[in-house]
Amino acid sequence: MSTAGIVVIGNEVLSGKVEEENARFLIRELRALGVELMRVAIIRDELGEIAREIKAMSEAYDYVFSTGGVGPTHDDVTMEGVALGLGVPLVRSAELEATIHAHFGARVTASVLHMADVPEGTALLGQGTMLHPITRVRNVYVLPGVPEFLRAKFNFIKAGLQDRPIVLRQVWVRVGEDAVGDHLREVLAAVPGLEIGSYPRFDTPEFKVKITIEAKDAALVDRGVAELLQRVPPGDVVRVE
Amino acid sequence: MSTAGIVVIGNEVLSGKVEEENARFLIRELRALGVELMRVAIIRDELGEIAREIKAMSEAYDYVFSTGGVGPTHDDVTMEGVALGLGVPLVRSAELEATIHAHFGARVTASVLHMADVPEGTALLGQGTMLHPITRVRNVYVLPGVPEFLRAKFNFIKAGLQDRPIVLRQVWVRVGEDAVGDHLREVLAAVPGLEIGSYPRFDTPEFKVKITIEAKDAALVDRGVAELLQRVPPGDVVRVE
Repeated sequence: MSTAGIVVIGNEVLSGKVEEENARFLIRELRALGVELMRVAIIRDELGEIAREIKAMSEAYDYVFSTGGVGPTHDDVTMEGVALGLGVPLVRSAELEATIHAHFGARVTASVLHMADVPEGTALLGQGTMLHPITRVRNVYVLPGVPEFLRAKFNFIKAGLQDRPIVLRQVWVRVGEDAVGDHLREVLAAVPGLEIGSYPRFDTPEFKVKITIEAKDAALVDRGVAELLQRVPPGDVVRVE
Repeated sequence: MSTAGIVVIGNEVLSGKVEEENARFLIRELRALGVELMRVAIIRDELGEIAREIKAMSEAYDYVFSTGGVGPTHDDVTMEGVALGLGVPLVRSAELEATIHAHFGARVTASVLHMADVPEGTALLGQGTMLHPITRVRNVYVLPGVPEFLRAKFNFIKAGLQDRPIVLRQVWVRVGEDAVGDHLREVLAAVPGLEIGSYPRFDTPEFKVKITIEAKDAALVDRGVAELLQRVPPGDVVRVE
């Protein structure tokens, strides 16, 4: 099972000026792909912080997706941060430079050309299908912060990330977490390898807790549901899906 | 100016089973209060990860808000994680224990009583106004993951966090980031202490970039706007607010 981390880079998200929607998109996509997301960090446009987070996630997980901080403005320091985090120099990509010249023509400025500076060893993907190709350094995909560009790039990448999806079953009960907490602990002990969640709701009369039972192995999940239903009195069960 | 960090604890958020809304709420609230948010981490219900994140944020920022992992179920390990991170033992609070007994009566179980175990030195706030009081350990507010409870608790806390709000002005231009990037760098050099952002949009004909200029000091922000308008040709400016 592949694992992943997400680094959202941008003071504008932390300050609430721009609502976060890239991590939200990626969370849904990774779930659908069966990739296990281990951590999301929303951090400032600061070299040291970017470098630390990228290094830690790149070493710990199979894939890292960064978003934001790759444009031409003064606060776009993601590429420098990724280079620092992975311990490689920032180098000018001749291919990206040519793409930028072709697009901007006489309007090229130093700021814009800075977008051709990438960590050494960067692979470019998707050339010809999009204006600015996807940049990948080792297992780190360095993606833009503009949501429509991020989505287009991720849709291109995701064919390569397919994994076995997670099987999810759900049990709704009309009793509170206090009544089922011990049962869940027992099911977990009886069927190792499951992931079990319980989510109380107080704004509906229909049920009090939704219990989720998950694993990549459907047989394991079925055993977990059976173990649970042996423990919860039938009258307390609202629905099983 | 006060600083803050947010730790969202919960596999259910990372796996996309439950949509993140607590950090989103806190981001807006902290902005309105003028507290500077430095970092958001969404992490798994794992002791070591919780401890590491709480320790780092508690040392670096004025306030830390954790959300999630404080219920009675097997994956609720936030209190243990906070205790580990701050280097104090987990102790049973007599006051919380009494509250739980009063609420649950004969339905009390070991799982539920575990909710009375808190890091040594925990202050309880808001007793009498809510069923389960707010728990604060040093500068760490340990808040629940259920959104309606989190909001109620934060609304109680926030009177104590008031700070000078951030002044924001905005300039919309009909040219791209490539045309304004150098100007922004110059304004930042001319008026240190500003925070400047630029946010391109491609889905409206009205403007190409929204520029934001911010600081706690309104005079500084006005100088920043003036410096910017000296540099951008008037015909390129759509609107100033």
